[in-house]
Amino acid sequence: MNESVEIFNWTLSKAQIVIEVLAIMAFALSGLIEAARHKLDAVGVFVAAGLTAFGGGTLRDLLIDRRPFFWVEHYYWLWVLLLVGLAAMAFMRSHTLELTEKAMQWPDALGLGLFAASGTQLALVAEMPALVAVLMGMMSAVTGGVLRDIVVNEIPRAFSDYRPYAVCAFLGGWVVVLGEAVGLNSTVTLVTAAGVTIALRGAALLTDYRLPEWRKERENR
Amino acid sequence: MNESVEIFNWTLSKAQIVIEVLAIMAFALSGLIEAARHKLDAVGVFVAAGLTAFGGGTLRDLLIDRRPFFWVEHYYWLWVLLLVGLAAMAFMRSHTLELTEKAMQWPDALGLGLFAASGTQLALVAEMPALVAVLMGMMSAVTGGVLRDIVVNEIPRAFSDYRPYAVCAFLGGWVVVLGEAVGLNSTVTLVTAAGVTIALRGAALLTDYRLPEWRKERENR
Amino acid sequence: MNESVEIFNWTLSKAQIVIEVLAIMAFALSGLIEAARHKLDAVGVFVAAGLTAFGGGTLRDLLIDRRPFFWVEHYYWLWVLLLVGLAAMAFMRSHTLELTEKAMQWPDALGLGLFAASGTQLALVAEMPALVAVLMGMMSAVTGGVLRDIVVNEIPRAFSDYRPYAVCAFLGGWVVVLGEAVGLNSTVTLVTAAGVTIALRGAALLTDYRLPEWRKERENR
Repeated sequence: MNESVEIFNWTLSKAQIVIEVLAIMAFALSGLIEAARHKLDAVGVFVAAGLTAFGGGTLRDLLIDRRPFFWVEHYYWLWVLLLVGLAAMAFMRSHTLELTEKAMQWPDALGLGLFAASGTQLALVAEMPALVAVLMGMMSAVTGGVLRDIVVNEIPRAFSDYRPYAVCAFLGGWVVVLGEAVGLNSTVTLVTAAGVTIALRGAALLTDYRLPEWRKERENR
Repeated sequence: MNESVEIFNWTLSKAQIVIEVLAIMAFALSGLIEAARHKLDAVGVFVAAGLTAFGGGTLRDLLIDRRPFFWVEHYYWLWVLLLVGLAAMAFMRSHTLELTEKAMQWPDALGLGLFAASGTQLALVAEMPALVAVLMGMMSAVTGGVLRDIVVNEIPRAFSDYRPYAVCAFLGGWVVVLGEAVGLNSTVTLVTAAGVTIALRGAALLTDYRLPEWRKERENR
Repeated sequence: MNESVEIFNWTLSKAQIVIEVLAIMAFALSGLIEAARHKLDAVGVFVAAGLTAFGGGTLRDLLIDRRPFFWVEHYYWLWVLLLVGLAAMAFMRSHTLELTEKAMQWPDALGLGLFAASGTQLALVAEMPALVAVLMGMMSAVTGGVLRDIVVNEIPRAFSDYRPYAVCAFLGGWVVVLGEAVGLNSTVTLVTAAGVTIALRGAALLTDYRLPEWRKERENR
């Protein structure tokens, strides 16, 4: 537990803090944009932003029985979220929304990589088996977006757009497992794993790669 | 923990018990009506009623790691719920449904106020920071209705109808924080905070007030 | 806690293991098929299969505060799930999908009965009141399918198809309570309760029985 807290503090206390904040903000922003698209009201906007930013980590912590939650320990980020949300609602217009979505894919990829790597590491510290830890990391990276889509009543994009997203997080998680197995330094492992996920996601975005579809006959139905 | 249990028992053991029951019943009833509207079957009706009545408090308790849950400790309310549900299914007709929805807004406002106030207080007892405690209170007041709407596959009304609902709970929660900060008696604080929420919600209902909408340009899209 | 683990191990270590595996696989398969119908991608297929197979038990364990989760302790089933999912995606075609759904109802009924019985028993061991324990058992049998339907953005079938499903699990749960009350041997109780649920569900499937609908006037609306 101690070690877990330590690693976690490390995650946030060193140079990565800038990226970590970027990641949370990117996730929050994607929730905010999605809520605006569906014309949710102010409350819906904050809830969607908060769920997207903190939902994945909270589910992971519930499952590995880890407290306090990130947003309880670092509750000032909730204030930041409130202020950013208010500012966005005051200034955002529809054309801005469209612009932002594309610009957002890159910090979102950063967030994906970082959350997948740190989630996997936390689960390993909590003595989960390797596959479970990797799934926990993937979950903490992906669940936020899934909850966002459920709140606005759509099939979660992560499950249905045939773009590698969770898959990148899954592969990055295995890098953490590998790193720990060969006794690599934790920091190096974390950075490498996050880097692999980010690179894979970036490559997928740039090449517009799509996962294989269901076999043809399904189409004729 | 002890103190937490005590406060909670206090919540239910004094004069408020009548209102508390009204609140749970109002929430359960709103779940039941929503389920009937979507023609869910008997199981769906009970699940919707139960989720609406107990979902918010259960999420709050999961998050602050508090056991036993309300419906485990006071499981006889589950029996009441089953009986009320059976009676409702036997006697309810569509015109009754419409009547009831309007009549229901008032006990629902009572429930909102009480759950927001007691949820915030429980979270403060569990040593959550002020903002977190207020959000926990809001969550315990609002989540039931959100789960109800997700089960019947609609965008949660609390996020999309531009009526102040969660906002009233949020403001009422701050009254609890304020009351505790200045050392007010717990009971007085709870009643005042619940009163503020209920009054705000009541005023919103009477004046038909709506939260500001997204800026005009979104409409032209 | 010890006792709980023991009973649980018992559940999986004796002759029932074949049926238990059948049940998990049936649930996973139903998630997989539903995901294929909605053309989810590979990630969606695994998530739907995993949620359906493990969602109910995980919710139950979260609520009775029981760790480790099934899929953490027996994580090799996750590997099996991954492999089955990959095989299914490679070989499944639409007509197979339809065939499978009907064939699936029977192992699914087995799963329903077993999960309801063992969930109720675990909750009783965790000292839940009888009604709560029965609801926990029902939840662990039904929640998987509910999550599956929410992920593909449909009103959960268990709440809306007027077929007795949760109701069978509910009645089977009471058999566990009864068995424990009269001091029956745990194994006998479990098998009997599962048998009752399976028989009820089977009878409902064979007779095409439907729960009573809402009163006529609703239709005229």
